Amino acid sequence: MNQVSKIDFIKAEKLKEKPDPDTLQFGKNFTDYMFMMDFDGENGWVNPIIKPFESITLSPASFVFHYGQAVFEGLKAYKTIDERSVIFRPEKHIARLNASCKRLCIPPLDSELVLEALTTLVELEKDWIPEKEGTSLYIRPFVISTEPYLGVRPSHHYKFMIILSPVGAYYSDGQLNPVKIYVEDEYVRAVKGGVGHVKTPGNYAASILAQERANEVGYEQVLWLDGKENKYIEEVGSMNIFFKINGEIYTPKLNGSILPGVTRDSVIQIVHDWGIPLHEELISIDDLYETYQKGQLEEVFGTGTAATISPVGELKWEEHVMTINHFETGEFAKKLYETMTGFHYGKIEDKFGWIKEL
Amino acid sequence: MNQVSKIDFIKAEKLKEKPDPDTLQFGKNFTDYMFMMDFDGENGWVNPIIKPFESITLSPASFVFHYGQAVFEGLKAYKTIDERSVIFRPEKHIARLNASCKRLCIPPLDSELVLEALTTLVELEKDWIPEKEGTSLYIRPFVISTEPYLGVRPSHHYKFMIILSPVGAYYSDGQLNPVKIYVEDEYVRAVKGGVGHVKTPGNYAASILAQERANEVGYEQVLWLDGKENKYIEEVGSMNIFFKINGEIYTPKLNGSILPGVTRDSVIQIVHDWGIPLHEELISIDDLYETYQKGQLEEVFGTGTAATISPVGELKWEEHVMTINHFETGEFAKKLYETMTGFHYGKIEDKFGWIKEL
Ligand SMILES: Cc1ncc(COP(=O)(O)O)c(C=O)c1O
Ligand SMILES: Cc1ncc(COP(=O)(O)O)c(C=O)c1O
Repeated sequence: MNQVSKIDFIKAEKLKEKPDPDTLQFGKNFTDYMFMMDFDGENGWVNPIIKPFESITLSPASFVFHYGQAVFEGLKAYKTIDERSVIFRPEKHIARLNASCKRLCIPPLDSELVLEALTTLVELEKDWIPEKEGTSLYIRPFVISTEPYLGVRPSHHYKFMIILSPVGAYYSDGQLNPVKIYVEDEYVRAVKGGVGHVKTPGNYAASILAQERANEVGYEQVLWLDGKENKYIEEVGSMNIFFKINGEIYTPKLNGSILPGVTRDSVIQIVHDWGIPLHEELISIDDLYETYQKGQLEEVFGTGTAATISPVGELKWEEHVMTINHFETGEFAKKLYETMTGFHYGKIEDKFGWIKEL
Repeated sequence: MNQVSKIDFIKAEKLKEKPDPDTLQFGKNFTDYMFMMDFDGENGWVNPIIKPFESITLSPASFVFHYGQAVFEGLKAYKTIDERSVIFRPEKHIARLNASCKRLCIPPLDSELVLEALTTLVELEKDWIPEKEGTSLYIRPFVISTEPYLGVRPSHHYKFMIILSPVGAYYSDGQLNPVKIYVEDEYVRAVKGGVGHVKTPGNYAASILAQERANEVGYEQVLWLDGKENKYIEEVGSMNIFFKINGEIYTPKLNGSILPGVTRDSVIQIVHDWGIPLHEELISIDDLYETYQKGQLEEVFGTGTAATISPVGELKWEEHVMTINHFETGEFAKKLYETMTGFHYGKIEDKFGWIKEL
């Protein structure tokens, strides 16, 4: 990290006006700069550059449009209460990005260079990190295959880019609002042997229809079951899922079709640290319902970069409606949320080494 | 079809030189013109235009790069022996395109307009249809989601495009060369409830790794098994599969994770017409191997727009190697190939109504 940066820089002629942090919509505003790097078979990854955020020009025959060879990540930078700019667990996200590349036959990225690109770009754009508690700067690194070619085999050309988007508070009043979740028993997101355990666009494309159907009947998200038996709980649209049962914590074990969430991993470490029993195991929806009927299902919550912790107030499975904790945010989810955001905003000492300061 | 065309036209200033039909590589050369049409939430599908083939400009935040909401088709135009330009079953391909749109929550296309776009574009580019037997003009209609937005819900903007690529003869000497196929028992392409039955980029992205592994050990393609039990035969990379057993024809039935191939459908109609028993059913790889061991597996072949009919000479499943028909093209596959290409090149009367003349 002491070497001179290999990253080129083109200065923007004019900077944009920053949007009002109170009315920010997720994923709609982008900052002044972006990072870009190209891959070709002969030279590998070349031409790393930070330049003004702008459109890219591609052949309509570009591989990504036809065969979807692409991967991405999602992580966040925060402004701490003492005005430092920090990124949450970038190394872990970069490792997952490279795991995604591997599964999609995309040439691996140099992790150090990606980390340098991330930190340099966010440092340059640090005025875009909103200051209010609950807000953040969303970081989207992604790789697309760009060769103009219509045969199915790994593309010979790629672009790696990082774009940044300031995002408002997920919970407007600091109160965590429980969500209603529909247990999907017809559509399937992923199956063992497929690509569910990595972040590739096709997983999300495949999920849209079920999500729409759930919305139509008043549910905000879908809880996916496994693709083989339509029985074991996997994860929510863009969150992993946890259950508090009789004072202990349960989450589906990583089985090859669930995304290994960085927030999931962080929550597991915190719960271990608290000395509370935590079980990563196969959890069938039938068993969960039985637990619910016995009055033992105390809390349900999702974990993900977008919302950090998202309490679940209702689960609908077939004709059964499970109301969790009287549709109120549980104490445990709340405490986890405060702990996680405590790390994000520098209110708790970084004992796990998760915070990358710029 | 009698109405005045709604399709705008921009003339190219200069036309490209046509490539040598003897050395054409699949999917690398594109013709002078392309069709394009845009969708936005307010106006629907608007601005249909035929214009010079050129790059498109998109925000790096475009939905397709991140969440892969996209669909495509692949069909062919042929030059008949009496110099007519024809397209094979365009209506069937357009119907499948709209089925793909539906599953991916993409607003439906007006089938008549798409047909008009296809025929107008191919008519304009008819000098690009190579003349030699076995060659054709590959037609690639596709839809990509273009809204610059990083949340997961249907995009509000799309582009529909058609590009054309002249392709050389699949079998250089008119001899059908049998292929070696690896039965994949670890990776999975699709599962019931997912998107395997439609043409969306993510399916192909997910397939690349298995394909690469098969190539490394000397196999050209992968035969996919079902995602639930890893047992039932589904299809090959970009072909459906047929077996001739004891004089009768078998093919996996459409189960929700297999692409309903247009060539598959054509072959089924031809076989029915010939009065030969044909069974669409679940076929397990174990049963197939047993049939092979009993000496009853007479022929295996794939069907798809790219190769029309592709005889399979060897199937490798776990430690078993099945050599089919002494690694020679079977009589049945050959007769089907001649019949199908007979329709393509106008050597057989179009009794099924498959040929769309321009
Ligand atoms: C499918 C899916 N599951 C889970 C998660 C949660 O992962 P993380 O905690 O790393 O954001 C995400 C979001 O990235 C996701 O897209
Ligand atoms: C996965 C898959 N299966 C089968 C086929 C064969 O379909 P068709 O005969 O319509 O070309 C294709 C090619 O389109 C395909 O991509």
